[in-house]
Amino acid sequence: MDLLNHDYYMDLALNLARGARGQTGINPVVGCVIVKDGRIVGMGAHLERGAAHAEVHALQMAGKNAEGSTAYVTLEPCSHFGRTPPCSDRLIAEKVARVVVACQDPNPKVAGTGIARLRANGVEVTVGVREEEARRLNEMYNKYIVTGRPFVTLKTASTLDGRIASRTGDSKWITNEHSREFVHTLRHRHQAIMAGVETVIADDPSLTTRLSVPALHPVKVIVDSTLRTNPESRLFNQQGKVILLTTEQAPKDRRLLLEAAGAELVTAGEGPKVDLPLALELLGKLEIASVLLEGGGKLNGAMLEAGLIDKCILFYAPKIIGGADAPGNFQFGGFERMDDAIRLERTEVEMYGEDICLTGYPVYGKEKP
Amino acid sequence: MDLLNHDYYMDLALNLARGARGQTGINPVVGCVIVKDGRIVGMGAHLERGAAHAEVHALQMAGKNAEGSTAYVTLEPCSHFGRTPPCSDRLIAEKVARVVVACQDPNPKVAGTGIARLRANGVEVTVGVREEEARRLNEMYNKYIVTGRPFVTLKTASTLDGRIASRTGDSKWITNEHSREFVHTLRHRHQAIMAGVETVIADDPSLTTRLSVPALHPVKVIVDSTLRTNPESRLFNQQGKVILLTTEQAPKDRRLLLEAAGAELVTAGEGPKVDLPLALELLGKLEIASVLLEGGGKLNGAMLEAGLIDKCILFYAPKIIGGADAPGNFQFGGFERMDDAIRLERTEVEMYGEDICLTGYPVYGKEKP
Repeated sequence: MDLLNHDYYMDLALNLARGARGQTGINPVVGCVIVKDGRIVGMGAHLERGAAHAEVHALQMAGKNAEGSTAYVTLEPCSHFGRTPPCSDRLIAEKVARVVVACQDPNPKVAGTGIARLRANGVEVTVGVREEEARRLNEMYNKYIVTGRPFVTLKTASTLDGRIASRTGDSKWITNEHSREFVHTLRHRHQAIMAGVETVIADDPSLTTRLSVPALHPVKVIVDSTLRTNPESRLFNQQGKVILLTTEQAPKDRRLLLEAAGAELVTAGEGPKVDLPLALELLGKLEIASVLLEGGGKLNGAMLEAGLIDKCILFYAPKIIGGADAPGNFQFGGFERMDDAIRLERTEVEMYGEDICLTGYPVYGKEKP
Repeated sequence: MDLLNHDYYMDLALNLARGARGQTGINPVVGCVIVKDGRIVGMGAHLERGAAHAEVHALQMAGKNAEGSTAYVTLEPCSHFGRTPPCSDRLIAEKVARVVVACQDPNPKVAGTGIARLRANGVEVTVGVREEEARRLNEMYNKYIVTGRPFVTLKTASTLDGRIASRTGDSKWITNEHSREFVHTLRHRHQAIMAGVETVIADDPSLTTRLSVPALHPVKVIVDSTLRTNPESRLFNQQGKVILLTTEQAPKDRRLLLEAAGAELVTAGEGPKVDLPLALELLGKLEIASVLLEGGGKLNGAMLEAGLIDKCILFYAPKIIGGADAPGNFQFGGFERMDDAIRLERTEVEMYGEDICLTGYPVYGKEKP
């Protein structure tokens, strides 16, 4: 169906927003389309934290056509002074007649007050067009703005028997080039990438974003309880800041050495292991709203066991590697009963060539593993 | 596209054939549609070994309309006397003008001679309409008729971490009711179902076909090197013959006991383990052309390692169970290098509710696990 209606304009606004995924930091992605007398007169998207909001870009394009127009916005216009003045005021000042909003802003500083302000000033407001899509588009922001903790997306690449390497540790490559290109796209869309020190030691990865077009490099977050990371690692030679999550048990000389190499150290607990819930809180305080977890099986298992994974993106290559000692994609104590297993909901499956990509959201039960 | 052409009639013939999957034993499924002066005058399918072939049923329906007609057949008409006379002779006798064939019969007794016979008798023959589909529809027959060994379809139900049970052995239920309904449909479509004695001891399964409509029960083949199967097992109380694959090491008293319970014993090798390649040869000699392997991880691993699995149907429930000791879907020594992993080709993915069903055909490399 290709029908000119509210959904049509909101779809376009959502596409504007979608294009900017990864480049707005802790801010949501937002798109705006302004329509007057049967034609589009303005379009805009929020492109970078601190820069203009979507509505402002679109109003600028509309110029004096804004008066009496309808603005489609994928997120409730803001009502507070942040780094920029409130968009609801601007829409009122430009005499926009009607605002169609996809969803409310969960930000406690907004949360309906932007819509209320518009209405109080005589602007007709419709809420809920393409609501579910709009909400999901900002799933990372939605969590961060309410909890202060980053949204964690886990990504794994496994064989059909759930292994992330052979029994000898060989993992190059499990998935195909299309899957790997998507993983780099995911890196662009997250503020940080998280891995364990074992991976750094074993593979010496650069953890940068490598695509056919220039892209953004995430902050590299390494879980390293006792600071075993080699200061000569490729991590430090590449783009993107390095954060080492460590504990009070990390030796002082390693601290100095790694800080000299350019690492930022974040101490999460007394040890011996990094306190993962605390670590995520501290990352949130550093304004990291989204983390792509590309851990080995142990880190994946620990994060899952702690209930810290918000979304799973699981690639399966059509291969069977075998070997009881071949590492699994989720290593943790596990559950006794099948009914207690952690379920993924809202699952979706896509093919990348012959690889299968399963996306879902874990539901943590009451039972502890 | 819904166009009246050769493909249209062949599609119908393929659907007639498809409906009879599971009920023709070692015979192929075949459909036939006869068309005269722009309308269908006959339809038929081969329904049971020893009964009429598809062409005969369709010709009977067509009656005198057969003369000058076009017959669409999903498999080359036979040219030899089997349990019924050759269909190519019958088509010639009925003065069919033209035969459109989807694919040649790989049966060495036919293999093009049916087509040649028709042509030699003035019938116009076209070969290759919907060839790939028709060939795939009889993938079990195609293997058996050439090699004498059954086609083996492996089915597993795993969690996303590749486990077929929790660490305590709990496996009820991994997949949902839709997936399980499909598994019973698969039982109907295979002549035999194969499982290990461990499964029989642990779960005491009946291994019958349970669907909302009456269906056929496969022969139950249990891999049981030393005949540990309990003669009181549910296996024996239900429909479907029981074959125990065993070795020369099986104690004589167990043999007598289990034969008395109704089992047919097939001795495959000296032991201590059942010689699986030999076992499949022996099943082939017993006119079993298709086996559904519903093994545990060990039997699956051994069958895969021996290169005996022709097709994999892998269900994944969107669950993570964890536990290093939770049994995996394929247990075997495994490969050292990821490049040596057994690949599945021609993979397809389907959803059964939230469960994922991956189908593919293993390609066995030169490297031994």
